[in-house]
Amino acid sequence: MADKKVEAITSRDVDFAQWYTDIVTKAELIDYSSLKGFTIMRPYAWAIWENIQKKFDDEFKRTGHDNVSMPLLIPESMLQKEKDLVEGFAPEVAWVTHGGSEKLEERLCIRPTSETVFCDHFAHVVQSYRDLPKKYNQWCSVVRWEKTTRPFLRGREFHWQEGHTLHETEQEAIDETLGMLDIYADVAERCLAMPVIKGQKTESDKFAGAEATYCIESMMHDGKALQAGTSHFFGQKFASAYDIQFTGRDNKLHTPWQTSWGVSTRLIGGIIMTHGDDNGLRLPPEIAPVQAVVVPVASHKPGVTEAAEKLVAALTAAGIRAKGDFSDNSPGWKFAEYEMKGVPLRIEIGPRDLEAGVCMFAHRTGGDKYQVKLDGVETSAKEALAKIQQELYDQAKENMEKYIYEADTLEEAAAQMAKHAGFVKMKWCGDPACEEAVKDRIGIGSRCIPFAQDKKAGVCPICGKPANTTVYWGLAY
Amino acid sequence: MADKKVEAITSRDVDFAQWYTDIVTKAELIDYSSLKGFTIMRPYAWAIWENIQKKFDDEFKRTGHDNVSMPLLIPESMLQKEKDLVEGFAPEVAWVTHGGSEKLEERLCIRPTSETVFCDHFAHVVQSYRDLPKKYNQWCSVVRWEKTTRPFLRGREFHWQEGHTLHETEQEAIDETLGMLDIYADVAERCLAMPVIKGQKTESDKFAGAEATYCIESMMHDGKALQAGTSHFFGQKFASAYDIQFTGRDNKLHTPWQTSWGVSTRLIGGIIMTHGDDNGLRLPPEIAPVQAVVVPVASHKPGVTEAAEKLVAALTAAGIRAKGDFSDNSPGWKFAEYEMKGVPLRIEIGPRDLEAGVCMFAHRTGGDKYQVKLDGVETSAKEALAKIQQELYDQAKENMEKYIYEADTLEEAAAQMAKHAGFVKMKWCGDPACEEAVKDRIGIGSRCIPFAQDKKAGVCPICGKPANTTVYWGLAY
Repeated sequence: MADKKVEAITSRDVDFAQWYTDIVTKAELIDYSSLKGFTIMRPYAWAIWENIQKKFDDEFKRTGHDNVSMPLLIPESMLQKEKDLVEGFAPEVAWVTHGGSEKLEERLCIRPTSETVFCDHFAHVVQSYRDLPKKYNQWCSVVRWEKTTRPFLRGREFHWQEGHTLHETEQEAIDETLGMLDIYADVAERCLAMPVIKGQKTESDKFAGAEATYCIESMMHDGKALQAGTSHFFGQKFASAYDIQFTGRDNKLHTPWQTSWGVSTRLIGGIIMTHGDDNGLRLPPEIAPVQAVVVPVASHKPGVTEAAEKLVAALTAAGIRAKGDFSDNSPGWKFAEYEMKGVPLRIEIGPRDLEAGVCMFAHRTGGDKYQVKLDGVETSAKEALAKIQQELYDQAKENMEKYIYEADTLEEAAAQMAKHAGFVKMKWCGDPACEEAVKDRIGIGSRCIPFAQDKKAGVCPICGKPANTTVYWGLAY
Repeated sequence: MADKKVEAITSRDVDFAQWYTDIVTKAELIDYSSLKGFTIMRPYAWAIWENIQKKFDDEFKRTGHDNVSMPLLIPESMLQKEKDLVEGFAPEVAWVTHGGSEKLEERLCIRPTSETVFCDHFAHVVQSYRDLPKKYNQWCSVVRWEKTTRPFLRGREFHWQEGHTLHETEQEAIDETLGMLDIYADVAERCLAMPVIKGQKTESDKFAGAEATYCIESMMHDGKALQAGTSHFFGQKFASAYDIQFTGRDNKLHTPWQTSWGVSTRLIGGIIMTHGDDNGLRLPPEIAPVQAVVVPVASHKPGVTEAAEKLVAALTAAGIRAKGDFSDNSPGWKFAEYEMKGVPLRIEIGPRDLEAGVCMFAHRTGGDKYQVKLDGVETSAKEALAKIQQELYDQAKENMEKYIYEADTLEEAAAQMAKHAGFVKMKWCGDPACEEAVKDRIGIGSRCIPFAQDKKAGVCPICGKPANTTVYWGLAY
């Protein structure tokens, strides 16, 4: 017997926040460092992130984007060139004041985001319309000195990708902004099994310096929203501030049009809160580091270990991320361990199975265990994984739909939120004061103006004026 | 005609340093940022780095290592726990003193390397021998406030991987240290076509806090050495300083044994200086972002563009990183451009080739162009790429062997170095004072004590005492 035990975790419906913390530590995703807001991503979390990165990166490359690497540090004067950006970020950046024993002439901030350095570079390398578009992306970590922090969801350091593109025309930049949002939505739904709502942020909620911010919003098991990715249309604001110009087809100087877009490790938080249950994590097969775990039962009996090893080899050869657990822990301990880790498919094999030429499949999404022939087990495993991927999506979709409410008045909205958090679909006149009033009076903020607008006319629940815009309101991580 | 021209670069033998700078800028690898020592890795350089990363990462994973992510910032008090480390790195770290508008209680340094944070984490997660070994790696950037900087070779920020492992026994840790050095040497020679000498650093040259530092040393075209990778055996020093202990098989508390090892983007500098020539970069096919470029000739003639497109598709389908250049630049311009970029294989196709069912292959390593049948072109291209990879290695190996000198006295060594820089093989008694004296008197430092020692006895060229250790001395980047 091993000295390690699988401990129970807090029930999801008793204390969602504690349940979340239990999972991030007990599934061995995170270790807290000695520095508040800075976490250690342990092998299992980093392997999930590598799989997520691969999914997005493949799409970025397929659509003609190049990865680059920009400096970690930004001189204060460079940050200050764009006033919205400096107002938005200056209060939360970390400042470097000394290099070695010498005091720096100018403070440098650790990048909270890299618009400034991309712009500085673009100004060097863009001269003519022939140099456009520039479609760049970088995978890195950024630092923002947040007051409250939570693993994956809000950290002083977090990992992300930031895409930065520059275009000859406004239309091309708008197409890029919306095209990347589509890619985000597709990867979220197809790979992370996380249904999302595509929409636009209101003026008060958009990115510092952007003309328009679009987002994908997903709903967690507790009915709160998670902003899972954002795509910004910058217009010419940054390009003007950083003196980026190009000679156009008409031989005159023009200012290019710009976008940026990002997803981060908060997606891992989203996966936990979308799919996890009282037994632990549940990982979508598309991004699970281990898709199938083979557990030998009564492994001391002749042939069992060998058969389990053969099974792992066959699954691996078929392109499935498979592992066998040949440790001396009990099968029961192992079952609990891999439930906690969210491994989508568990395959058991014991002496009797071996005799019958079968093994047993157990899905992390539930249902009875069932017998599968060893002959052709790879195909059965692939079918099972596809089914589990779909089940996770369907369950998440059902949860989301259950908690999307329609409300015409603040009272209706408040009553629904009092029963269970969710997205409230409610009209809005477009006045920021009314948006603020919704928050003040019933505590929910605008999540997004969904692309899918219903046609019916309505009135603003605050001012009573005619209002044709539907907004999703709710609580958010 | 495009507005961009391929410009000539400085000749390699006229001014090696200027030639290097010309290549890093004109092959579009690097852009200088506004901040000294911080460079922008443009798409082409980052694509090379991604390919290099993949080669190493595959080997790390194959040998049971897990990737993780550690915090970017380290509290000053944590750095100070190991005195050699703080003495070695404190003079060159960047200090963060403010988070947002608030002054921090304790200064934080941007990681110059991550031993401290790995140790802090290991202390949390290692309790028993069952938790060992821990074989971790992280890909990240680090910051060291260097006085003189040069793209890829020495920067205030650079990208690398740092492996950190913890073991139950001393032997296991030694095996790991040397095993990783073997992997470094293998990838350098097999993928980067860069011959290396495996050896150990002298005491004066080892890593701060290490018991022993091993290295792979390669030789650049100008005869100077480049330290291309290092692997350190830490013994129990760090583990003791950071209170890492585990319950052993004997049920008593023990201190584990530790290693660390790293390679960085300076390998790209090494590739440039090992393989580049007066026409630009020459990239080993194994890591070239574009392995084969297809250039249509007289592309206005019917069928040429279509045939070139088909060729690119066929090569791509066969797993070759191929691209076609269909721009309106002249073929001559394109030839120069891809020579500069170091694309290993150029394939030309024009109307007459098309008629004859052939295309023309030109190797970046030289030799005459030759005809290749379109039918089966994928196989021919793979053979050509394998040949180019081997040629690059052979040429680099020849260069290295030409400039390895044997010397018994300082005068001999100095005379050889005066003709052309290289590695001087010379005996050493082991006294650091004699090592220092070699440097003072003829300006060359010890590069390494090679694993391949010759048997013959000798005397130290400084003190005249019997000396059995052969050392490679030389100039280094």
